[in-house]
Amino acid sequence: MVSVAVLGYGTVGSGVLEVFNKNHDGIIRKAGAEMQIKYILVRRDYPGVPYQDKFVKSFDTILNDPDVRIVVEVMGGLAPAYDYVYRALEAGKNVVTSNKELVAAYGAELLALAKEKNVNFLFEASVGGGIPILRPLSQCLSANEIAEIVGILNGTTNFILTKMFHEGMAFEKALKIAQDLGYAEKDPSADVNGDDACRKICILASLAYGRHVYPKDVHTEGITKITAEDVRYASSWGGVIKLIGQVKKLENGQIYALVSPAFISRESQLATVDDVFNGILVRGDATGDVVFYGRGAGKLPTASAVVADVIDAAKHLKARKYIGWGAAVDGYVCDYLTVPTTLFVRVAARHRTEALKSVQRLLGNVKEVVVPEVKDELAFVTPSMPEGEIRRALQALETLDYSVISTIHVLDD
Amino acid sequence: MVSVAVLGYGTVGSGVLEVFNKNHDGIIRKAGAEMQIKYILVRRDYPGVPYQDKFVKSFDTILNDPDVRIVVEVMGGLAPAYDYVYRALEAGKNVVTSNKELVAAYGAELLALAKEKNVNFLFEASVGGGIPILRPLSQCLSANEIAEIVGILNGTTNFILTKMFHEGMAFEKALKIAQDLGYAEKDPSADVNGDDACRKICILASLAYGRHVYPKDVHTEGITKITAEDVRYASSWGGVIKLIGQVKKLENGQIYALVSPAFISRESQLATVDDVFNGILVRGDATGDVVFYGRGAGKLPTASAVVADVIDAAKHLKARKYIGWGAAVDGYVCDYLTVPTTLFVRVAARHRTEALKSVQRLLGNVKEVVVPEVKDELAFVTPSMPEGEIRRALQALETLDYSVISTIHVLDD
Repeated sequence: MVSVAVLGYGTVGSGVLEVFNKNHDGIIRKAGAEMQIKYILVRRDYPGVPYQDKFVKSFDTILNDPDVRIVVEVMGGLAPAYDYVYRALEAGKNVVTSNKELVAAYGAELLALAKEKNVNFLFEASVGGGIPILRPLSQCLSANEIAEIVGILNGTTNFILTKMFHEGMAFEKALKIAQDLGYAEKDPSADVNGDDACRKICILASLAYGRHVYPKDVHTEGITKITAEDVRYASSWGGVIKLIGQVKKLENGQIYALVSPAFISRESQLATVDDVFNGILVRGDATGDVVFYGRGAGKLPTASAVVADVIDAAKHLKARKYIGWGAAVDGYVCDYLTVPTTLFVRVAARHRTEALKSVQRLLGNVKEVVVPEVKDELAFVTPSMPEGEIRRALQALETLDYSVISTIHVLDD
Repeated sequence: MVSVAVLGYGTVGSGVLEVFNKNHDGIIRKAGAEMQIKYILVRRDYPGVPYQDKFVKSFDTILNDPDVRIVVEVMGGLAPAYDYVYRALEAGKNVVTSNKELVAAYGAELLALAKEKNVNFLFEASVGGGIPILRPLSQCLSANEIAEIVGILNGTTNFILTKMFHEGMAFEKALKIAQDLGYAEKDPSADVNGDDACRKICILASLAYGRHVYPKDVHTEGITKITAEDVRYASSWGGVIKLIGQVKKLENGQIYALVSPAFISRESQLATVDDVFNGILVRGDATGDVVFYGRGAGKLPTASAVVADVIDAAKHLKARKYIGWGAAVDGYVCDYLTVPTTLFVRVAARHRTEALKSVQRLLGNVKEVVVPEVKDELAFVTPSMPEGEIRRALQALETLDYSVISTIHVLDD
């Protein structure tokens, strides 16, 4: 009998109990071992919930019970999650977590500790919710060199951008609807500022390229400045706007990583990833483009990914799974401004023809984008150039009194 | 040093060598062991190819070499592949194959033998080519009960149907182009008759539901009868035509499996899977819909899936991976005619209004589909009814001199 302890009884935690009970027979059969959830660590009482005999309030009860071989951390946040996970691994227990903030901040360290203690530290649910992505990336695509990963990694912002795109809604109104539907939290900043997507692209980057990438090293733009006009320009250009996380390996061995809203061509498989769904494109040198699509969040999808990790941990109590990466090194993530990119730019301009001449002088052969109803501005897509050079040209443009209204990345094919 | 033998040096076999050599360092690192390809079994000489020291013509050389721990079968077909794989497993060697015909015909037997000998029998490349699907299905989605799997599983037919849809091309012309481009073989029957897709849905069904499903038990329709008119009707109805394999578990515990062309709504994530790409939708009770998309065939995508299995086998020389299913049982796959379905139907009819009355009398509330340029016929979508009942109603319609021009399944949402 393998005993499991669940830390936290919020959305994901209660989902874990639900999935575990509902599909119990199949889970036991796949794990090849009897399993029980012995403890649920909670901070308050949950009267009326049927697990009163499992609820405990002291982590030490779990830590000191040698029966507990697998600890499931679904509390979220760094404190006390980090402390609990660290001590569980240190005590030789396997850990499964859905906590992307924890993995993005301490992944390398916790993976090293798991290796030292010969236990597993698994976190499939931390990226893409119920979408299988980390295991396929580390196992099925292991014969590939990964050229690039591009993902719509945050369901909340994708819901908002979908509303803005298909219904012409303003950001604030779409956010309000997302909050009313429970897709966005009261304080939506981690979603709309791009921090959540950034944590996830860091985990993907770390796994794909073998060294820890920290969120602080990844330039991150959110969607709060995206307007209904930007969305109409995207449509006129031939695509949609999505918040994407991307990472690729440069020829010099450095990593380029970025989180930002981006124009995506209508032809892309990512363009039809709408509402709260996530989509992750992995470009391998042998396999070409592979896309994973599904619900990136939500109680049961996330819980099912957690329970799948629990099954895997139960199957590998003695044989460690080699999923992981090494410590970060200085200079590994490049300065995003040095890498060629393409930007969509809007500048205020009474006289478009004149403005276009100045733009062409500074940026070369740009491609104009027109939305007839939007007046007094010039909108265009730059050639591919190092982003720093584009930014300098735009500063020069401002000195000519063409003020920049917005800039949005354009995703290469 | 783990020695590997590759049986066959055709498209996939030469791709395996290419991927293995190109990404050698990464592969060794991920396998955690030195690896070499020691033998390549060939039937003829390959002058000028750089692997002369590895070519052997006798399987016994491989079988009798205790250094060989992993045998890669990429010959295709049943003979002599089955014999070689059986003997390799019997001798305690791990086997990796891309051969869907072999797995669909002998999967349960070979998996049982592998289990008995405590070795691995892996075949990720047999479904979806370079798309990770079998491992995610058996591992990442293991906490789910799988409600349904629907897949565009054959790239050749998808290329043909895409040409027919987007360019209004006739079947024969699209097939010719596919052959010229090397996507279809000279004898394209296994693709266009649906046999290839059938083998793949059998493997998916066996893995998802735990018992072997044989191709002979799955009703299979190909795409050879699909016409340019059918394609226009699909468009008018609001979707596209794709060759799909589907399997679902019925409430009585039986399996419903079918391979056929089908109308798919434009809203479906599968509708935009075009050209030679494959797309596989897995519907889990907890995770909801997850879609896997990528190149379902081709030298390097398939080879990369094979090499990923080789890496996994090398990592698990002592700890068997529990991927597999049990033997078939009688009556496990239901008679497809007993299960409710929806059909698109075209009948010859000079007088549409009269014909519609007869149709409604026999089939209830059908939904008419109109393509203005197509004259003298009535086209409609039936309500959901057991397919046998629909077929009987259509026979009754024929006795009224409304001859049936074509019937195509309509995929539920």
